[in-house]
Amino acid sequence: MDVAIVTVGDELLAGRTTNTNATWLCERLVDRGVAVERITTVPDRIGEIARVVNEYRAEYDSVIVTGGVGPTHDDVTMDGVAAALGRDLEEHPAALAWIVEEGGYAREDLTDGTADLPAGARPLHNGVGVAPGAALEGVYVLPGVPAEMRGMFETIESEFTGQKRFREVVVADEPESALLERLEALRTEFDVSVGSYPGNSVRVSIESTDEATVEAAAAWLRERVDSSGRGT
Amino acid sequence: MDVAIVTVGDELLAGRTTNTNATWLCERLVDRGVAVERITTVPDRIGEIARVVNEYRAEYDSVIVTGGVGPTHDDVTMDGVAAALGRDLEEHPAALAWIVEEGGYAREDLTDGTADLPAGARPLHNGVGVAPGAALEGVYVLPGVPAEMRGMFETIESEFTGQKRFREVVVADEPESALLERLEALRTEFDVSVGSYPGNSVRVSIESTDEATVEAAAAWLRERVDSSGRGT
Repeated sequence: MDVAIVTVGDELLAGRTTNTNATWLCERLVDRGVAVERITTVPDRIGEIARVVNEYRAEYDSVIVTGGVGPTHDDVTMDGVAAALGRDLEEHPAALAWIVEEGGYAREDLTDGTADLPAGARPLHNGVGVAPGAALEGVYVLPGVPAEMRGMFETIESEFTGQKRFREVVVADEPESALLERLEALRTEFDVSVGSYPGNSVRVSIESTDEATVEAAAAWLRERVDSSGRGT
Repeated sequence: MDVAIVTVGDELLAGRTTNTNATWLCERLVDRGVAVERITTVPDRIGEIARVVNEYRAEYDSVIVTGGVGPTHDDVTMDGVAAALGRDLEEHPAALAWIVEEGGYAREDLTDGTADLPAGARPLHNGVGVAPGAALEGVYVLPGVPAEMRGMFETIESEFTGQKRFREVVVADEPESALLERLEALRTEFDVSVGSYPGNSVRVSIESTDEATVEAAAAWLRERVDSSGRGT
């Protein structure tokens, strides 16, 4: 299973907010064996959201969209997804009822549009805030506020499953360029994905869907690198 | 001037690294009056990089690409950009000479390919690490290691200029939904962009290319919201 994540928000594109929502979602999805193929941040503009959601919907199994789903004029995430799917936004009676009955909000205090979802969508309840999310045709719309996004994702997490990948990290206190032949040999000897990340030491990441293969590959490499901790 | 940022890296898509490079670049670009229209993270795969770089090159004034530019097999950023531009990778003599003369590396210690750039590219020197970046046809390739990326961006920063935008933030200790009419009036009265970000208080962001307009709009709103600090 592969997914794309679309994070909507001018504040992300202005560098005022770091995209920790994407990091959190990726970590949870990868833990479930799901591959994340794209993370894209788009402005708070309906047409831009619709275009990217439609492109990714055609290409990946699911698209997770996070962004403003509240009542203000810049909360256009739901509008963008509705446009992508060619649906109108409609008040969802069950979503509205949930907010009143479970959320404890008086119906008359709710802003018009709070429970508007693309026609035909399944509502996703917001256990932390007010505005609901939505799921429809492989597109999931979650709030941009991190606590709300996390709480809502946990209610749908079981819908994301893939083949679990195993991973080990070998730390080498050598320059990355010195490791090239051994990394190449590692990839030839074992059926694993290898990534190397330089820093004070080089972190070599070894991944596979087979746990024993990863362990064997990591052991092979550990015997062949300097891990004295003296640094490079 | 508008730009797109492409951040290359499996470690970002796995949620092991948060994309602080994008945050930093956006902040610097927006400070210079440049609009960032997209931030997209793609895997360490040449074809995926090439596809996204080409799409954005057609749409925006510049594309800034960050990712692995070192010597290991997963450092495919330069290959992806070369593919996007239909160029071969070639050793750039001046980039190589710079690494040896300014970087203090012995030529024989450098891994083959260290100074390979798309044919015709201008080399960008790496004052912090080794591998150079590249600039060609509006595409800028920077390293993924944050310190190297930042140092290199500062050497090209003056090539990014736009119309400076001014911004003020008004904090309101009211529920966001209670503010709707005043935010709408603010947008009608003044020619400004308005964003509202809920939290313990609501932060209302007011932006325009005219400083006096932003100040007047912020003063107008401050007179009309509860900013007692009592929270919502």
